[in-house]
Amino acid sequence: MTASSPISVPLGDGRDYAIHLRPLADAPALLREAGLAPHQCLVVTDATVAALYLDPLRNALEDSGWTVHTHIVPPGEASKSTDRLTALYDWALGLGVDRQTPVLALGGGVVGDLAGFAAATLLRGLPLVQLPTTLIAQADSAIGGKTGINHPVGKNLIGAIWQPRLVLIDPATLHTLSERDWTSGLAEVVKVALIADAEFADWLAARWDAVLAREPSVVASLVQRSATIKAKIVAEDERETRRRAILNFGHTFGHAIERVAGYGTFTHGEAIALGMRAALHLSRTLSPDESFDRAEALVARLPVPPGLAQISTDALTAAMSTDKKRHSGQLRFIVLDHIGQARVTADVTPDAIEAAWKAAKNA
Amino acid sequence: MTASSPISVPLGDGRDYAIHLRPLADAPALLREAGLAPHQCLVVTDATVAALYLDPLRNALEDSGWTVHTHIVPPGEASKSTDRLTALYDWALGLGVDRQTPVLALGGGVVGDLAGFAAATLLRGLPLVQLPTTLIAQADSAIGGKTGINHPVGKNLIGAIWQPRLVLIDPATLHTLSERDWTSGLAEVVKVALIADAEFADWLAARWDAVLAREPSVVASLVQRSATIKAKIVAEDERETRRRAILNFGHTFGHAIERVAGYGTFTHGEAIALGMRAALHLSRTLSPDESFDRAEALVARLPVPPGLAQISTDALTAAMSTDKKRHSGQLRFIVLDHIGQARVTADVTPDAIEAAWKAAKNA
Repeated sequence: MTASSPISVPLGDGRDYAIHLRPLADAPALLREAGLAPHQCLVVTDATVAALYLDPLRNALEDSGWTVHTHIVPPGEASKSTDRLTALYDWALGLGVDRQTPVLALGGGVVGDLAGFAAATLLRGLPLVQLPTTLIAQADSAIGGKTGINHPVGKNLIGAIWQPRLVLIDPATLHTLSERDWTSGLAEVVKVALIADAEFADWLAARWDAVLAREPSVVASLVQRSATIKAKIVAEDERETRRRAILNFGHTFGHAIERVAGYGTFTHGEAIALGMRAALHLSRTLSPDESFDRAEALVARLPVPPGLAQISTDALTAAMSTDKKRHSGQLRFIVLDHIGQARVTADVTPDAIEAAWKAAKNA
Repeated sequence: MTASSPISVPLGDGRDYAIHLRPLADAPALLREAGLAPHQCLVVTDATVAALYLDPLRNALEDSGWTVHTHIVPPGEASKSTDRLTALYDWALGLGVDRQTPVLALGGGVVGDLAGFAAATLLRGLPLVQLPTTLIAQADSAIGGKTGINHPVGKNLIGAIWQPRLVLIDPATLHTLSERDWTSGLAEVVKVALIADAEFADWLAARWDAVLAREPSVVASLVQRSATIKAKIVAEDERETRRRAILNFGHTFGHAIERVAGYGTFTHGEAIALGMRAALHLSRTLSPDESFDRAEALVARLPVPPGLAQISTDALTAAMSTDKKRHSGQLRFIVLDHIGQARVTADVTPDAIEAAWKAAKNA
């Protein structure tokens, strides 16, 4: 990996932080740079990631004087539960953490969300360090401070905005991802391109085979560009009162797919890929644009398993109404004006929603 | 009650809020002023407070177009538990809250901390309105955004800083407090005077009989002055990285007393009153000042039940070492330079701590 300048996330109020694309072994140096002096730290990870990356990280930290405590959760969405959170609290408080004890989240979105929420709420807030190892986490979820767990009523309904002190992305970890996790992550990459960077969308389309093959220089560029876009949007609107909402492009539809199909049938990325098909159709209905053909072609390149066509449209529409992005009881959608520009709208008819679902099913 | 100007809490970043000393029935007008339009709201309270103040509040809200959902918890510290929090989550999410649904915490510190933490973490943050009805809450805990629940390892170990959108203090509610709750609350009032306002300390000493008798004009002034000091300190240092720590005067000792004696033996205020005796002795040891005689005389006026002398000093000292205010493993104390000025120090010998405990026991 070639060294690149860190991406800064300027939040003000003493909470600015940097996103570094560097090898995981650089963690001790970057912790020190972020003002975290060697002491004790908590590393939270899952069993899959632990087998690959825990030992080298722990060795690097211990060599720099850190005392490392490790907590390993089972891989998968089911770990974003109140039971796992309670176990994490009991473990951390039993160790005698203090307010200078950092929590290092080593893994994908599940580990980042769970460990991040624990960091947000232990002693009213411990320093959080995100060490994302999946594409979805490196390009999206590890940046921006959203943390949380699931509730039987829906995903991510309990959580907090808690910014990391540091994000360290090692793109080399992406080469151990399964094929499905890689292509699922690409959905969020395509999403940021479509909503905010037309040139990046063209770049992706032009080298899609190299993207699928994970050609190392393409992987590093793709992560760098996605993370930069995400960081910029988050810095403009940390608490999602305005512009940050565009990051939910495809998500109102996608969350409904996950909820109705059952979590696990589609990955999050696959549900978002399908959701973007629906959202693009909705965008066409509201204001047609010639760039939508290219947008649809790019989204169509994201592999998704079959099954959406067999799900009832009424059930999908009903599931959307419990989405937490509702605003004063009203459902909102993210639509494109053209590739690279998105906006929020609540001005959508039931017919347009039904047509959008049909388009996603038939694509 | 005479109308008074609201106390402002300037936090910046769009999060400034006001503390109003007004009748509870003014809640609907103040919600609107704070940008919260009538829709649905969640009122969390305890059974004792509900019997006294829930109906008039609900009527006022409903008359202004609010749909009011009510959740009543048992009175007492035991309600700051993960079980109660989970029940609150299930209830709120079952109702279909959205991000504009405010949580109104009607009650004392327990209700404020529990409902405040639920507000901080439901959908990553709902608007919070503090309606404190006890002295300890009006003078202290409802201001500043500290929310949380207890854990078997210690009090308030799980929580968040989540600022209210509005604090409405109705001092008339203080007249229904038990004698013990009133005098317990006075400990936090004496504390803010000792750490930050010598003139207020003199004012309290000069009219202590009227304070104990809850003479209405004295009550309103006392709450107004305490809340103003608290608001000023919090606005200067929201996340307790510096000056806010002085609000913990008496608390390192006091928390240890609560932990060893068992919660419920002493009220929080009584433990803090005893803790301030120890902290004043420690202050004398570090830098004697002629004002300490007056400080000790004021603290001595706070009624506390007997029992501290029977508790082992070693057990108390050991209990201090799990305090969450530790900094990189080191215990810190708040001491006075003189009445009206406090500072944080870690430079305390075991002998000085032992002598401080002895002084508190013998006072």
